[in-house]
Amino acid sequence: MSLEITSANKGFGGWTKHYIHQSSTLSCDMRFAIYLPPQTANGQKVPVLYWLSGLTCTDENFMQKAAAQRMAAELGIAIVAPDTSPRGADVADDEGYDLGQGAGFYVNATQAPWNRHYRMYDYVLNELPDLIQETFPVTAERSISGHSMGGHGALVLALRNPERFRSVSAFSPIGNPVNAPWGQKAFTAYLGKDQSSWSDYDASILMRKAQGAVPALVDQGEADKFLVEQLQPETLETASKTSGYPLTLNRREGYDHSYYFIASFIEDHLRFHAKHLST
Amino acid sequence: MSLEITSANKGFGGWTKHYIHQSSTLSCDMRFAIYLPPQTANGQKVPVLYWLSGLTCTDENFMQKAAAQRMAAELGIAIVAPDTSPRGADVADDEGYDLGQGAGFYVNATQAPWNRHYRMYDYVLNELPDLIQETFPVTAERSISGHSMGGHGALVLALRNPERFRSVSAFSPIGNPVNAPWGQKAFTAYLGKDQSSWSDYDASILMRKAQGAVPALVDQGEADKFLVEQLQPETLETASKTSGYPLTLNRREGYDHSYYFIASFIEDHLRFHAKHLST
Repeated sequence: MSLEITSANKGFGGWTKHYIHQSSTLSCDMRFAIYLPPQTANGQKVPVLYWLSGLTCTDENFMQKAAAQRMAAELGIAIVAPDTSPRGADVADDEGYDLGQGAGFYVNATQAPWNRHYRMYDYVLNELPDLIQETFPVTAERSISGHSMGGHGALVLALRNPERFRSVSAFSPIGNPVNAPWGQKAFTAYLGKDQSSWSDYDASILMRKAQGAVPALVDQGEADKFLVEQLQPETLETASKTSGYPLTLNRREGYDHSYYFIASFIEDHLRFHAKHLST
Repeated sequence: MSLEITSANKGFGGWTKHYIHQSSTLSCDMRFAIYLPPQTANGQKVPVLYWLSGLTCTDENFMQKAAAQRMAAELGIAIVAPDTSPRGADVADDEGYDLGQGAGFYVNATQAPWNRHYRMYDYVLNELPDLIQETFPVTAERSISGHSMGGHGALVLALRNPERFRSVSAFSPIGNPVNAPWGQKAFTAYLGKDQSSWSDYDASILMRKAQGAVPALVDQGEADKFLVEQLQPETLETASKTSGYPLTLNRREGYDHSYYFIASFIEDHLRFHAKHLST
């Protein structure tokens, strides 16, 4: 498996590193970032938090703006942040910021032209963790988190694969994409007009019928301009009440959709995950 | 005095805000950022830390990448981050990243064409603090910090105006610009070939003959690619020994010139400033 390091910056005694590798799942080169906390310097293995970013983001935004490394270093957790879609000149794209490159929605596309590369669900669930575990000093323990489109991805991956994740959290997730403009546009393109296939990628539908239960924490800013139309956190609250799902959802007065919101509460999320991981 | 807000994001209970105003000192529109900690919400006045960024930066880098808001909120300190030079279509510029727009070096230029707009020393010392104090709930107490070119600027401003600042700190400052390529290029353009005027903008020369003494903290990464040729922290150490200047200079193994380094030690710097400010 090819793997090339493109940058390494020391921080809080550990290292933020960026890599590029050939993804067999996505059939293109993919970038990802990893923060390795100082505990790994002498070979200690640490659990991994996967972070899924939102629309238009890359492997860089979280590492530069979320201020997560301090607590990851203190708690002894590695963080892996993949890019948000396949990329490249031969990868299908769209003029909109909310479809195509930068907007993979963490699904396995079934429709042309998207189905050739857009398999972010499989990539994040299988290929990337396998590569991380083969390459870095990490244990098999994983949790997952994300923002907006990535919050949707984190919830869907954890709800569908409760045996693979110890905990899940999200900032400002798209709670019910089958009923939100972002989700409807993306799912129509990637999954087709037949909406029966969409529910496998809808966190509130999955949470309503969840069997296994990965503990979930969600933070949502009340001044988020996408709150009412796109995010709909009340759909997650209703679903968790229906199924008794262990969800804690905090609404934060005055906070918006930006990384300033994420930075303000990332410590809470990392401490939440640390409770469920062996650190 | 015109003043227009361009963005506001809540963070750690306070607000990161960006403004644009017409600067009479620089004869152009200028942007700056301010973080107002939560203590100011009910009218409490807080002291201000001025942050001067490095080459190519704007008013955005520090607020997005330094992870400073958490400690500023805890300690009750406002942070003001100006842009790094005058800007605009009619403002003189250069093709190099290290001269002209984005590279004001915090001097008052005396040479054409630079002397029309490039007066960052006066702007940071006088016009900007006056505006901040008139506009926001802050006290007259100030400290100053910065990175690289901005670390040079912070040290020079504090060394020349000890009555105006309670403390000064710097990450990776240009310690002796009259003997470094960045400084020589900028000072030749802005101040002219006669080097007698340069020493007023050289931190190690000023520290060697300092009378008043603003307590100083410097952090320098040992893996910084600019360390030997451009930054020369040993010139500050020698100067402080000569004059007995209260300088603490930490060399940090493995750290580079990036914001990952700044984020790792910004808490130390904010706690240092808080000791010297009434918080």
